[in-house]
Amino acid sequence: MEYVIDYINSHFTEYIEELKDYIRIPSISTLEANKNDMQRCAEFICSKLKDAGMTRTEIFQTKGHPIVYGEWIGEPGKPTVLIYGHYDVQPVDPLNLWNTPPFEPVIKDGKIWARGSSDNKGQNFVHIKSAEAFFKTTGSLPVNVKFVIEGEEEIGSESLSTFISENKELLKCDAVLVSDTSLYEPGVPTITYGLRGLLYMEVEVTAANRDLHSGTYGGAVANPINELAKIISKLHDKNGKVTVPGFYDEIQKLTKVEKENFKRLKFSDKKLSKDLGVKELQGENGFTTLERMWTRPTLDCNGIKGGFIEDGAKTVLPSKASAKISMRLVPNQDAVKVAKSFEKHIRSLSPKGISVEVKMHHYGLPVVTPLDSKAIVAAAKAGTKSFGKKTVYTRDGGSIPIVVEFMQKLKAPAVLLGLGLDSDDIHSPNEHFWIENFEKGILTSAYFLEEFSKV
Amino acid sequence: MEYVIDYINSHFTEYIEELKDYIRIPSISTLEANKNDMQRCAEFICSKLKDAGMTRTEIFQTKGHPIVYGEWIGEPGKPTVLIYGHYDVQPVDPLNLWNTPPFEPVIKDGKIWARGSSDNKGQNFVHIKSAEAFFKTTGSLPVNVKFVIEGEEEIGSESLSTFISENKELLKCDAVLVSDTSLYEPGVPTITYGLRGLLYMEVEVTAANRDLHSGTYGGAVANPINELAKIISKLHDKNGKVTVPGFYDEIQKLTKVEKENFKRLKFSDKKLSKDLGVKELQGENGFTTLERMWTRPTLDCNGIKGGFIEDGAKTVLPSKASAKISMRLVPNQDAVKVAKSFEKHIRSLSPKGISVEVKMHHYGLPVVTPLDSKAIVAAAKAGTKSFGKKTVYTRDGGSIPIVVEFMQKLKAPAVLLGLGLDSDDIHSPNEHFWIENFEKGILTSAYFLEEFSKV
Repeated sequence: MEYVIDYINSHFTEYIEELKDYIRIPSISTLEANKNDMQRCAEFICSKLKDAGMTRTEIFQTKGHPIVYGEWIGEPGKPTVLIYGHYDVQPVDPLNLWNTPPFEPVIKDGKIWARGSSDNKGQNFVHIKSAEAFFKTTGSLPVNVKFVIEGEEEIGSESLSTFISENKELLKCDAVLVSDTSLYEPGVPTITYGLRGLLYMEVEVTAANRDLHSGTYGGAVANPINELAKIISKLHDKNGKVTVPGFYDEIQKLTKVEKENFKRLKFSDKKLSKDLGVKELQGENGFTTLERMWTRPTLDCNGIKGGFIEDGAKTVLPSKASAKISMRLVPNQDAVKVAKSFEKHIRSLSPKGISVEVKMHHYGLPVVTPLDSKAIVAAAKAGTKSFGKKTVYTRDGGSIPIVVEFMQKLKAPAVLLGLGLDSDDIHSPNEHFWIENFEKGILTSAYFLEEFSKV
Repeated sequence: MEYVIDYINSHFTEYIEELKDYIRIPSISTLEANKNDMQRCAEFICSKLKDAGMTRTEIFQTKGHPIVYGEWIGEPGKPTVLIYGHYDVQPVDPLNLWNTPPFEPVIKDGKIWARGSSDNKGQNFVHIKSAEAFFKTTGSLPVNVKFVIEGEEEIGSESLSTFISENKELLKCDAVLVSDTSLYEPGVPTITYGLRGLLYMEVEVTAANRDLHSGTYGGAVANPINELAKIISKLHDKNGKVTVPGFYDEIQKLTKVEKENFKRLKFSDKKLSKDLGVKELQGENGFTTLERMWTRPTLDCNGIKGGFIEDGAKTVLPSKASAKISMRLVPNQDAVKVAKSFEKHIRSLSPKGISVEVKMHHYGLPVVTPLDSKAIVAAAKAGTKSFGKKTVYTRDGGSIPIVVEFMQKLKAPAVLLGLGLDSDDIHSPNEHFWIENFEKGILTSAYFLEEFSKV
């Protein structure tokens, strides 16, 4: 093990350069314009898996973006870990708010600044490098390893979902290891045992059959923006609760232990307010901020558009307005049931003068993993060793719907070994990843492979 | 007079070609990219005024777009009419909904299809051609004529406002003639004696100081789109009344005669619903549709923007959302007072977790002209002669704020001799102008010059 650690430490500068090359590929999965970059990125990461000693590597083409697979299964008696990551990234708009170009990684202040640095290229690359370190020093790995790195995480992982269903034997494993969450605090190794699910909807309101002059017609015909605003305003009640019927019906209550665990984390509302630059936090009444972010379902508009949106003034009474509205779900909400109830609710809130179209983009179920599962125990030990601090257990408000699929279809527990920080500005301008977490991440991954071989 | 009419009839084909050239210049005043086109359009129309016999023509440069002036004041004993129009046009978005390119005029189905064909190039060009017809046939005009054709009507007429204030002597006149409204019905000559005013505001809501991941933070911090929607939803009460305090305080009540006049127009709600493709009209309770459109103040969102507005899905909890909100005003609402009350109202509706910026784009006061003013009487006779039907009197929901300025600063009544149709789709894709109205408009203008010389 010492050789492995030494190898990692002496090759770290090269790892950084390789990560930069990985990041430079603008693999934005949601934009048609970046389709070729997706293929290029898949090829890049596939070649890295080969370099890391994987005896089988393959790029699986899909209806969407390619899935990259790599495996080393040279220890039949030992457990198998499936390491999942995604090479796709979020769009970069608004571009004008970036301090440096999003796809030209820059090292500054101990961080690497670029889109995808933290979410998720930096975090999945650590596992490739730890495997490589074992392979280069010992010629083998302590456990069997299967890598699955997909290109559609940011748009719903549709192809991977099918791929898992169709390749259960190929992907068979004892645990799924995912680094796509955050450390609770800098320097504190963290295992996340729960994730919220996601339901992403879009609502389009149409009033008149064409854009109208707001003077000539204003006051006599429904305005789709005003009507959409009214609908949105009714999606929460005065206590901050979502008004979609049945929304809270099937929610698991938090256990006492969980509540106490959260209290011990000493979360500071004041610090978060200050960080976000708001006078006060707000949300569902009757819950702490951690509970709101990690364990309570929410509804947020992610985008809204209607009428004239350039600079200047245009006196138009538009024909259409639309909003992207997503809900974060928690166990045991049923996304499909919620989607149906949401659509019905939206229709019930719509007056006669407009027509409404409701569509679903995608959804992912929420997940909570037992804290005593073997892979979580191994990961906790690995984290404590590499970071030199006791591993803590948290939940996360984000969604990795594919984690649920892995768990359900492969019947394996998932271990969320986050290496990012909430302050990494993932999905926002100026995303970054701490070099320290990249380094500790590779070490943690190496320790995990070692520890997991012992359980 | 017969020679003049004959001249117009025999030159009509050329007039159409000239109008097409006028329309081809993409003079969109609100877009920086079209700045050169604005100058080009001013030069074009100035040369047409020269051709029409104006003895003085001049392009006045301003802080914004140029103002074109032309005059023929060869009849000192006769009244002077100031003819106002605007050569600027609205933006063309959404471009994909146009059947033919917006700045390539096409004649089809008895209409000329292009941005600016009806609003306002076609309508101001008629007066230049009627003057030309007099000049070419008789060497003079029956009354003194001053043309003012500006390039900022669609963005608030700021430069012309200053220009009028600074050139009261130059612009001195007995009446202001404006063709920038509609015929009540095809074939029915119409004088509009009232216009609504406009107050154009923009509201920007900021929550967190940066875009956030909606999973990580959703539920704990204000969402600016949801908050903006809540604010907008509170701008009308359940009776469709605007909730801005004091909004209705100073409104002139409609007279019985006006109400009866409107009844005689036999306006059909059903026909309008069908035309606009809506199941039902909606608006302020207790008023007819004509009253709502012509005589009642309104509040409409003209644009809204926030978060991710491209195709696809992005799970962002945005930092900002903004809406362009305009109000149509009626006598005697005070735009500045309403703007202040609006801003205060918006702030009172905003929760602590967000900050709000309210700015005013521009405003224009509402106007009502006495029906017995000489120019209106002359215009009514002219309309009846050229269209062969009795002229009707209407009001209009649109705003030509500059008309109020002419009235107030030059102490002259305004005559709104509309030649468009409400179905012309001004400000929308597929704007068009009836060839028949262009032709009858030139004749009406010629008859007006003749009739006005007799009063």
